[in-house]
Amino acid sequence: MEKIRYNNDYNHGAHPAVLKALVDTNNQSFGGYSEDEMCEAAAKMIKEYIGNEEAIVHFLVGGTQANVIGLLAGLTRPYQAIICPDSGHINEHESGSIEATGHKLLQLPGTDGKITAAQIDALAEVHATSEQFEHIVEPKCVYISLPTEYGTTYTLAELEAIREVCDKYGFYLFIDGARLGYGLAARSCDITMKDLGRLADAFYIGGTKCGAMFGEAVVLNNPELNKGFRNIMKMHGAMLAKGWTMGVQFMTLFENGLYFEITDKAVRLADQINAAFKAKGVKAFMDSADTNQLFYILTDEQFEKLDEGFIFANMGKIGDNQTLVRFCTSWATTQEEADALVAAVNQL
Amino acid sequence: MEKIRYNNDYNHGAHPAVLKALVDTNNQSFGGYSEDEMCEAAAKMIKEYIGNEEAIVHFLVGGTQANVIGLLAGLTRPYQAIICPDSGHINEHESGSIEATGHKLLQLPGTDGKITAAQIDALAEVHATSEQFEHIVEPKCVYISLPTEYGTTYTLAELEAIREVCDKYGFYLFIDGARLGYGLAARSCDITMKDLGRLADAFYIGGTKCGAMFGEAVVLNNPELNKGFRNIMKMHGAMLAKGWTMGVQFMTLFENGLYFEITDKAVRLADQINAAFKAKGVKAFMDSADTNQLFYILTDEQFEKLDEGFIFANMGKIGDNQTLVRFCTSWATTQEEADALVAAVNQL
Amino acid sequence: MEKIRYNNDYNHGAHPAVLKALVDTNNQSFGGYSEDEMCEAAAKMIKEYIGNEEAIVHFLVGGTQANVIGLLAGLTRPYQAIICPDSGHINEHESGSIEATGHKLLQLPGTDGKITAAQIDALAEVHATSEQFEHIVEPKCVYISLPTEYGTTYTLAELEAIREVCDKYGFYLFIDGARLGYGLAARSCDITMKDLGRLADAFYIGGTKCGAMFGEAVVLNNPELNKGFRNIMKMHGAMLAKGWTMGVQFMTLFENGLYFEITDKAVRLADQINAAFKAKGVKAFMDSADTNQLFYILTDEQFEKLDEGFIFANMGKIGDNQTLVRFCTSWATTQEEADALVAAVNQL
Amino acid sequence: MEKIRYNNDYNHGAHPAVLKALVDTNNQSFGGYSEDEMCEAAAKMIKEYIGNEEAIVHFLVGGTQANVIGLLAGLTRPYQAIICPDSGHINEHESGSIEATGHKLLQLPGTDGKITAAQIDALAEVHATSEQFEHIVEPKCVYISLPTEYGTTYTLAELEAIREVCDKYGFYLFIDGARLGYGLAARSCDITMKDLGRLADAFYIGGTKCGAMFGEAVVLNNPELNKGFRNIMKMHGAMLAKGWTMGVQFMTLFENGLYFEITDKAVRLADQINAAFKAKGVKAFMDSADTNQLFYILTDEQFEKLDEGFIFANMGKIGDNQTLVRFCTSWATTQEEADALVAAVNQL
Repeated sequence: MEKIRYNNDYNHGAHPAVLKALVDTNNQSFGGYSEDEMCEAAAKMIKEYIGNEEAIVHFLVGGTQANVIGLLAGLTRPYQAIICPDSGHINEHESGSIEATGHKLLQLPGTDGKITAAQIDALAEVHATSEQFEHIVEPKCVYISLPTEYGTTYTLAELEAIREVCDKYGFYLFIDGARLGYGLAARSCDITMKDLGRLADAFYIGGTKCGAMFGEAVVLNNPELNKGFRNIMKMHGAMLAKGWTMGVQFMTLFENGLYFEITDKAVRLADQINAAFKAKGVKAFMDSADTNQLFYILTDEQFEKLDEGFIFANMGKIGDNQTLVRFCTSWATTQEEADALVAAVNQL
Repeated sequence: MEKIRYNNDYNHGAHPAVLKALVDTNNQSFGGYSEDEMCEAAAKMIKEYIGNEEAIVHFLVGGTQANVIGLLAGLTRPYQAIICPDSGHINEHESGSIEATGHKLLQLPGTDGKITAAQIDALAEVHATSEQFEHIVEPKCVYISLPTEYGTTYTLAELEAIREVCDKYGFYLFIDGARLGYGLAARSCDITMKDLGRLADAFYIGGTKCGAMFGEAVVLNNPELNKGFRNIMKMHGAMLAKGWTMGVQFMTLFENGLYFEITDKAVRLADQINAAFKAKGVKAFMDSADTNQLFYILTDEQFEKLDEGFIFANMGKIGDNQTLVRFCTSWATTQEEADALVAAVNQL
Repeated sequence: MEKIRYNNDYNHGAHPAVLKALVDTNNQSFGGYSEDEMCEAAAKMIKEYIGNEEAIVHFLVGGTQANVIGLLAGLTRPYQAIICPDSGHINEHESGSIEATGHKLLQLPGTDGKITAAQIDALAEVHATSEQFEHIVEPKCVYISLPTEYGTTYTLAELEAIREVCDKYGFYLFIDGARLGYGLAARSCDITMKDLGRLADAFYIGGTKCGAMFGEAVVLNNPELNKGFRNIMKMHGAMLAKGWTMGVQFMTLFENGLYFEITDKAVRLADQINAAFKAKGVKAFMDSADTNQLFYILTDEQFEKLDEGFIFANMGKIGDNQTLVRFCTSWATTQEEADALVAAVNQL
Repeated sequence: MEKIRYNNDYNHGAHPAVLKALVDTNNQSFGGYSEDEMCEAAAKMIKEYIGNEEAIVHFLVGGTQANVIGLLAGLTRPYQAIICPDSGHINEHESGSIEATGHKLLQLPGTDGKITAAQIDALAEVHATSEQFEHIVEPKCVYISLPTEYGTTYTLAELEAIREVCDKYGFYLFIDGARLGYGLAARSCDITMKDLGRLADAFYIGGTKCGAMFGEAVVLNNPELNKGFRNIMKMHGAMLAKGWTMGVQFMTLFENGLYFEITDKAVRLADQINAAFKAKGVKAFMDSADTNQLFYILTDEQFEKLDEGFIFANMGKIGDNQTLVRFCTSWATTQEEADALVAAVNQL
């Protein structure tokens, strides 16, 4: 019997409805570079969801592109920098993509993968009052992820506080939403799409991990960030020739709320698995994590048992006889697959 | 009646066989980031076609990525530069993507979009003998396109001469093959895939314009260029999460030579259209162009007539009453569409 | 007898008055990083000379720094580019320093090292009207040199025309004045310091080649360019700890017009040498050149004769039996040295 | 009475002997760009001091240049990164100069401004064993300062351990010696010039803060780092036209050991001041600091008293009624000035 893949949330193609839409439009011809009616329609749907008709939506193929270009859009001077949690994807997992554009990251130590308004305020204050301000970089953007790399989420109150400190210092707030659907579906998360529409200067709605074959929708609530955005996309190899394929996918995902339905289902399955691990007393990496990513610390014996039937991510040894692992559900995970894992966990 | 699109070669989705392969594999799960059996199989086919089993193949989403990363792979010092024709895509149409990585382009004036071994030799000699060599950039890569931006091709003799001068100075030779199939299908082109396998340090096989929904296959004949290639991909947002989707597409294109069959067909249709234009005495931008891109200079009257039934690219006014235009055929062009255009040209 | 150095205009230390000022202030203590009373006083003098009290003056150690930072100051988006003559120092002799910051140079073919308003207008028009504007870089600054690399100068009318086209498109005009004094002293040049104060957005007054031990004064007439200028200086290693040493030097050069007196003398000596070459029928590289740099094409015999008593720059072979050479006068050149060279030329 | 400057160690011109040498050579003419006999002679002296005849010495104007270029010399791939202490000058006080070249800094939390071999080993191990190595930057250089930003020094044993871990992973070790003389003169420092000659791949000998008017001598013990070093210098605006002025200064400083004599004197004066502070019970920022930089935490009352007669650096409030301050001695500090400060401290 083949092992069931829980190692990540991007190991299947597209949601059947998304695939069907690609097939149905395959014989049509469209204008290039996302200047087409599919992208326009998808953008319109997204703008309705976030309650901001003035927003601008760009479709990019992947998350690293979305992060780099979305952040670069807010920087107009070479010495401007980006504040981020130390565990941020741009700091840890994008091979120095931001620095490759010449800009520095100012890492703040996260708690459960999150940073606070107070931390940002303190760092900003140092720059604002330093006599050495010409010798140090100038913070200009704040980057956070929803959900975080560790599967935790911000609360609305936390997000509003960060927005406030950004306003205080004139910072742009950028939210990495590679797994946005899974974040919004978490029980701990009281943030809505409309909140994102009013609190972020820019954010992106992850498609690749949430039902699309590929594609991320970058939403610019702040029109200042749109200056030359498409030029920067082109410069970074992020202007897809057949851009309408992303429009088609996002139209399908946002028509009738499919995006939220399928990510919600994935998180509910994760809840079941999470409950099984907790019932068994297996140690979670972070107790507050409740999205589609489950990080647990397994003994060697537990590891071996689960390894028999499942593929999951080995995040490295933590001391003797203990390994940090990750199980991900996704829109493609079935109730049967969840049941199989729950059963296996119950047997540990 | 809807106008027929001849404006570019990327206005339709995927070739039906490619689409079918994507559909057929949609429910399977794969490893991420192109570490999967589909990419491996596609790479194997490509290596057979070029007659170089030692080659390394990477799959990237688009041409700008392929150019930037393929060229960057050969540069180890910040002051190294790339020799290219002034009309090169990297010089004219990628929004400064190479310079964004910190490297200079050394443009040589092209003839019919091509540069010669003698030109490269002369430029290289200046650097090699200059007492000011520490004050000027060091050429390290040569970039050419096959076919060129103007739809012309190199001959094997020209390519071999360029290879020779590259060897003389230790330059890497990179060939942009965004429309490779269309170039190889041209009657003026005596270059084969096997020639590319032995003459280029690196080249790429364009998928986006030649039957795929998206994707380009970068081939490294020279293993030196593979050092950190995937890290650079990641850094540039060019490592697709669901990389197998490109493996699946290229497998389909290279199984039984579909890639060559469909691009050949497109060029044969272009030949028919070309013949009609020539018969009518319409002035070609470059007489030697014979791939799938047809550049012609139309009078205002001719422009208006063709505009009634066809979408084509307006490349700008050339003096009074004259416009440079481009018609592209592609794998999606049908004999009926070609007949319609030929008939319209005959009526001019 | 030692050969006389005519190879460049930076082969002697400082003008005696400048050296004396450095010695006289050596025991004083000052604030760091050019925040001191010497720099302030020198800036005040310069602002009076150019007739712009609102100008901002920064002191940098060398010309490449002045060019890179002065140009970077005007670019706020990564895809913005700089228009320059193909012979421009930033294009030919600074080892790719501009591209290293991520920005592209748009080279225009120069005539006698100069570009025209019409050329700039034509290039700007292409960008302004292109449907592909998102795929091509956006010109934002115009870089010219006064005098040029070939020892020629612009006329006031030419400069005003360039200013006009810059205004038309919203471009910044930057003038490289590494040899500014020698340019202004040329008989062909009717431009004054006050013209520079009203026509350039930014320019720099070369010290290194014109009497200082080191140092260039960058003048920003357009206050927009001052945003973060010092941060960029620091970032580029161009903020000298003991900045007052440059203030002291420029104070000395601009008190009582010493700068203009010594550069004028150098150009008058060059005139004498130029006349001798012309009288002898030696072919000048550019007939219109009349600053302190003299480019001539020598036969091998002439080369050998002059080589006996003088050091001059060998710019490379031009065909058989002919070499392009450069003789430079400088503030340090004496009448006796000029007489010796004139005598030698007369003997050719 | 004028206040005595203790705010930094670069507030006076050049040591009298250095100034005299500049004056004595002012009328001579030299080759440009440090290709002259003065630079050669100075390099020879330095190579003797470090016991490495094969070393290569380059003269640069300032410390930021020395750091950026010295580090860049060791990086051949864009995703390579530099390990440094969080308090490192390149991380905190150079306005993002390293990131501006596209490379990431990997900051390790310092203890007394220092990092340990064990910390470097642990970080390197993560990269070496990570399955995600293509998604994270690759450490390639280690940057430390001697003395550190906080006036502390490494021991020979600590330095040798760092060398060992660098060898283990193939890292280059770069030592920032902006205040090298003051570090070597510290009683806590058992490192010698010869140790630097054998343990560092590259380091620089600070001139600006140690007796020169300007200039830093970058020493490359590892010839691999010399590939294109001068091209990179030029590219970064760090190739001084009148390079011999630095040769002259370093010759003077290294003839008869003047460099070590004057920095040793400055540290002995600092010892006296340090002793006075300690006797008075004023809290030191770091007890182990014993070079020419003295960091103390003053009460408001103490601050005001010392402010009457001395200029010193205010590093910011530390809680209520407490300020972190820095007093620097330098080669220009006299015994009388030290006596005055000691007397004032005694009065606190």
